[in-house]
Formats: sequence, structure tokens, C-alpha cells
Amino acid sequence: MEKKKLSIIVFSGDFDKLVAVFTLASGAASVGYEVNLFFTFWGFNAIKIKKGHSFVGKGLLARFFNFFMGGLNNVPLSRLNFFGLSPKLMTGLMKKRNVATLEQLIEYSKQLGVNFYACEMSMVILGIKKEDLIPEIKEVLGVAKFLEYSKDGETLFI
Amino acid sequence: MEKKKLSIIVFSGDFDKLVAVFTLASGAASVGYEVNLFFTFWGFNAIKIKKGHSFVGKGLLARFFNFFMGGLNNVPLSRLNFFGLSPKLMTGLMKKRNVATLEQLIEYSKQLGVNFYACEMSMVILGIKKEDLIPEIKEVLGVAKFLEYSKDGETLFI
Amino acid sequence: MEKKKLSIIVFSGDFDKLVAVFTLASGAASVGYEVNLFFTFWGFNAIKIKKGHSFVGKGLLARFFNFFMGGLNNVPLSRLNFFGLSPKLMTGLMKKRNVATLEQLIEYSKQLGVNFYACEMSMVILGIKKEDLIPEIKEVLGVAKFLEYSKDGETLFI
Repeated sequence: MEKKKLSIIVFSGDFDKLVAVFTLASGAASVGYEVNLFFTFWGFNAIKIKKGHSFVGKGLLARFFNFFMGGLNNVPLSRLNFFGLSPKLMTGLMKKRNVATLEQLIEYSKQLGVNFYACEMSMVILGIKKEDLIPEIKEVLGVAKFLEYSKDGETLFI
Repeated sequence: MEKKKLSIIVFSGDFDKLVAVFTLASGAASVGYEVNLFFTFWGFNAIKIKKGHSFVGKGLLARFFNFFMGGLNNVPLSRLNFFGLSPKLMTGLMKKRNVATLEQLIEYSKQLGVNFYACEMSMVILGIKKEDLIPEIKEVLGVAKFLEYSKDGETLFI
Repeated sequence: MEKKKLSIIVFSGDFDKLVAVFTLASGAASVGYEVNLFFTFWGFNAIKIKKGHSFVGKGLLARFFNFFMGGLNNVPLSRLNFFGLSPKLMTGLMKKRNVATLEQLIEYSKQLGVNFYACEMSMVILGIKKEDLIPEIKEVLGVAKFLEYSKDGETLFI
């Protein structure tokens, strides 16, 4: 195994888990790894263009889900989340300690050439179109293609 | 690494995560992967025969846990779960978009030869017997055996 | 791939997931695997020395987080957690069935030579020092080093 490769299925949309995703992604890319992020389900929180409660997507039921997946400004923390307080608290802590914030980590990942992919099935279910997503999305794909890209590397489900 | 293999430790019993498990499993199997699913803890939700609040298992404490692990009809969604509404909503969305539902995905996985394994320790803790599980369970096994089967492939914990 | 290696990013601090981590770790180590545990974020619950609500860490915000990460005596169960009841219930079940408890599993893992690593960034964010952690922590490290250790094995995110 000569190629160093890290692939992550980004299923979660929780703030703390997204911090883990982009810390791993940017860290791996910075030491020469090929990094593939495959965003699916709640993970779309990280790659939707419209922030806030955006109502992207067609159909009432899809809107219902999208309402709760309001993009990066509204990602909850997986455990502590009192009144939406904690992601702000944690961002505060990260700034105070001079650690990169989630938005910075995402920016680093883009600059370091991390590959962003979006899950086709999730988009169909949620009625999301490619233009609703950040332009860095390289490809919209399914399981077979993802397995082709992730083969022979380390693969995580977060 | 010639063999293409995907192994998943199915720890979660949440509806959305089980959809992810069986989408990956059936998708991988359909492009020639050997797929191993190792069901443990809450993941037993997906492989218990009795549906509803079944009270499978012996002993009061085991019953307490089993009550909350009521099989496929009662799997909650990991994040949104208002009054048991969301898995139904999501199944509705999946049907509307012509995407396979969870039950269809499980059925595809079986037909495509995905290997189903059950975790021995979970069964001991929860007092579950092999006859409480779907007949597709190929083997009841522990960590050592699972590692033997998953070796040299991609392995996920979901 | 001759070397048998299992690496786990221990992100969760939930009781049931920590049971899974140490069951996998001790099980793998007992059949000759090199096992690397990389504790990060909530996973610090498993490796902090002070038990109870310890207020380890400096600064008010860090204390806020640490309060909710009170070490092994206070790890919640990921799903069922009524009034802190369930980890006790589950430990009761494990004892009754003669299955190793979480504390025993951690002890086995130590004895079997499992490698414990702590995430540098989490420690900076949370204001935790090496002396706040159990002495088995072999090294405090970042993503690049972890990838070096986990390379060519199976890697899980739990």
C-alpha cells in the first residue's frame, strides 16, 4: 500500500463531529494524504450554500427535514446543546486557545485539495440540487463510485 | 489487495444509520464486494424476529433493554424523533422519491449475499437466543472471528 | 499486509460505545493485534484521572465542558439514560451474565499492551494537561502521527 489515503463518510451534521471530520481531513491532507469526503444525510449541513433555516429542497416533507438541517450556522453539538449555546461556546474556546474554528478547518481542507463528494441518494430523498451545494463539490455519486475512490485506504464513518 | 471487502460493525439501532448501513451493504455487494455485517448492541434492532415491543430475552433487566429495542418497527431516527414521527416521515419521503425503503434495502442485502453475523457478547448480556434472530444470521461470533473476516478490507463502525 | 493492526479514534464518551471500544481493543490485542486507541474530545472521559465532576482544566468555558465530561463514573449511555440509571443497569446486567464490566475491559486492555494516545488539540481546547490523564497514556499527538501509527490496518471512528 504505497498510496496514503483517508476517506470519510460524513453522515453526521453535529458540530463536534464536523470539527473531527475537518481536523482529520486537513491534518491528513497536510501530510500528503489523498482525502475523500463523502457527504451524506445530516452531513449535508456542512456543504449547503444557504445558511440559516433555508428551506432548500422541494416538497413539504423534504422541507421539514431541511428545516432541521439548516446549514453550518445551525449545526448542533452531539451531546451538549442547551438552547443552541454549545457550538458557540466551543467556537469561543477554540478561538481563545488559538485552535482553528470549524469554518477555518473547512477552508484549510479546501485549500489543501481535499475532495468533496455528495451522496446522490441523499440528494434525491431530500430534494436537494447540485446548485444548492458549495461549488467545491467535485462530483455527486453513489456507493459504488465511493468504494472505488476509497479502496486501499483507511475509511471512517463519522 | 485483490479482494474487495467491506465490513460493518452495526452498533446503532437508529433508523437513519440503519438506512446508511444497508445502502452501503447492498451497494457494495452489487459491485462484487464481500460484505460482512456484524450486529452488536442496538444493532440487534435490525435482526430480531419479533417486531414491536417484544420482551425477548430473560430476566427483568434484559427485558428493560429489550423493551427499548423493539425491532425494526420501532427504530428511532438518531436526531429528529418527535413522537415516533420521523422514521415514518422518512419512509414516506423515500417512497415518494422512489428510493428503496429500509425494509427493501435489507431484503436486497440478503438477496445479494451479504453476510449477517451476530455478536455473541451482546446476546449474552441481553439474554437473546439465536432463534430470536432472523434466519439469515450465518454465525454468532466474537471479536477475534470478526477481525478474521474483516481483515484486509475496509471496516466501518456505524 | 502481514501486520495485524486495529486503530480506534475514541471520540465518544458514551458508556455503551466505550464498552464497544474496549471490547474490540482487548479482543483484538488478545489475538495478537497491535491496537492503537486515540482518545479525543468526549473520549477523554475514559482516560481522565479524576473521577466525578472534576473541573479539571483552566478557564470558565473549559470548566463548563469538563463538568459534563466527568470521567468514567459519569459516562452516559448513548440512547437510554433516564436519570443516570442506565449505565448502572447495564453494568448490573454485565455482572449478572459474567461479562466483563467497562472497568475490567479497560484493565484487560492495559494488561494486553493496547496503546493509549491522547489528542493534542482536544487537550489544548479543553485545557487538560498530561498529568490529568491516566499514566498509561503513551503519547500526546496530532492527526499526522496518528495516521502514521494507524497506517495499513483497520481504523474505526467510535
